Amino acid sequence: MSEEPDFAGACVAVVGLGLMGGSLAGALATRRACRRVVGVSRRPESLRAALERGWIHHGTTDLAEGAAQADIVVLATPPRVILRQLPELGPHLQAGALVMDLASTKARIVQAMEHLPAHVQPLGGHPMCGKEQAGIGAAQPDLFAGRPFLLSPLPRTSPQALARGKALAQAVGAVPMVLDAADHDRMVAWVSHLPHTVALSLMGAVMAGAQQDPDLWSLAASGFRDTTRLAASDPDMMLDIFLTNQENILHTMKVFRQQFDQLYALIEAGGEAALREHIEAASRRRRELNL
Amino acid sequence: MSEEPDFAGACVAVVGLGLMGGSLAGALATRRACRRVVGVSRRPESLRAALERGWIHHGTTDLAEGAAQADIVVLATPPRVILRQLPELGPHLQAGALVMDLASTKARIVQAMEHLPAHVQPLGGHPMCGKEQAGIGAAQPDLFAGRPFLLSPLPRTSPQALARGKALAQAVGAVPMVLDAADHDRMVAWVSHLPHTVALSLMGAVMAGAQQDPDLWSLAASGFRDTTRLAASDPDMMLDIFLTNQENILHTMKVFRQQFDQLYALIEAGGEAALREHIEAASRRRRELNL
Repeated sequence: MSEEPDFAGACVAVVGLGLMGGSLAGALATRRACRRVVGVSRRPESLRAALERGWIHHGTTDLAEGAAQADIVVLATPPRVILRQLPELGPHLQAGALVMDLASTKARIVQAMEHLPAHVQPLGGHPMCGKEQAGIGAAQPDLFAGRPFLLSPLPRTSPQALARGKALAQAVGAVPMVLDAADHDRMVAWVSHLPHTVALSLMGAVMAGAQQDPDLWSLAASGFRDTTRLAASDPDMMLDIFLTNQENILHTMKVFRQQFDQLYALIEAGGEAALREHIEAASRRRRELNL
Repeated sequence: MSEEPDFAGACVAVVGLGLMGGSLAGALATRRACRRVVGVSRRPESLRAALERGWIHHGTTDLAEGAAQADIVVLATPPRVILRQLPELGPHLQAGALVMDLASTKARIVQAMEHLPAHVQPLGGHPMCGKEQAGIGAAQPDLFAGRPFLLSPLPRTSPQALARGKALAQAVGAVPMVLDAADHDRMVAWVSHLPHTVALSLMGAVMAGAQQDPDLWSLAASGFRDTTRLAASDPDMMLDIFLTNQENILHTMKVFRQQFDQLYALIEAGGEAALREHIEAASRRRRELNL
């Protein structure tokens, strides 16, 4: 690919060295995908950890300093921190620099990216991977391997900048997919944000049940473990997702609630045929997915 | 344990050779835990599969024939089939035989067990394990290893019969725990049955979302996979669970709905502090569980 030499010579600044940023820096450095990786974090201990692992070549707590030396700046902080960092970043960016992010919601972020200086290239990004642990301790350079890496270009994003973003996604082992920011937020609300609200509510319900039966935790098996796993996600991240994709999430919650109420009514009525049909439709589709 | 020699000499009939029954027969036979394992199934192909694997010594499609030769009869069919089989079984049981089951709900089953002939010993059972695949093809002799095996004795169950049930649980590698049938159904509704209703409803909601956005399935990652995994469970089993533990399940669903509606209201209101507190309480507790 013609963009690879260009990307291979790049200095990439990764802002935020948590699960996602730490993993990205680690993937870039251990695969020698680019010339130089600069880590930016407000936590000196995260910079030290990244340096020790060989995941960054240089670390700084100063966003302006990190941004100034980079050909590509990747914001790997939570969505609402990104919204604050974008205007701070603007004055320090090199002409032609590519500014990307890794956040789970896109519309509000690409909207804020519109206001970056005209001489830089903005591109929304969202690698579809993760786990419930947070922080650089949970980071792993193979986190992106084989996973979709969604890219949301703005109208002002050049084809060259989009190609560079794709090259970065491929360089960390991911599969780039282009998706408009509004489509992204609507679709990801279904498969990611709604499951978080469901997992949190299930935890909340069982915590209420445990007030009467404290021993019920000892009965929790793999089904409960998996259904509630997302509730253990980073609270800051969940908060930011809920507050930056509100409308889409509320819509999916309304539809979930209709489904749940329908199942409630069918169990209450106790009619076998209708209940069986309802169960079988969802169960068959889930097995077909082969996830 | 004084019961072990007694158990080691026993003939165990396993009725139903699906995921649970097949695994139990396999665990008993491959561990040589008892003298003889008889398989009872209405499906000749399941009997053949169990014989080929060395999981049963003899197979029959005739419940009466299987029951007649057994010191212990384990009903591993779905809950409502068990309710039909118990009265059929009665006349064919040996004096002193132990009758157990492996079903996910207990109160209605132990109630039906009350009507077994006075010369047999009834004992409710529920190994807390499983997976979303059904049938003998999914069965595995190590399914019970290290898992709780709940035992619900009836007032008429002798201490010797309970000890025999515990020995059987231990013989397949499980950890026996005694739990009253009513307590069982109330507690398991929280950690197992409610998660099934939530997983099914999440699948139903995303299926509705996919009517507008058919491509959203390609974005489904590990979070969606895990939160919906239980929806792929055997529909017959889910149906029987919902219809034999209705009241408890409806109660847990009501509490879930309160939690879900509360989260909806907090996201809609958009107030950071209250939303953060709600998220953090569930998230912290989930991490503490160390599942």
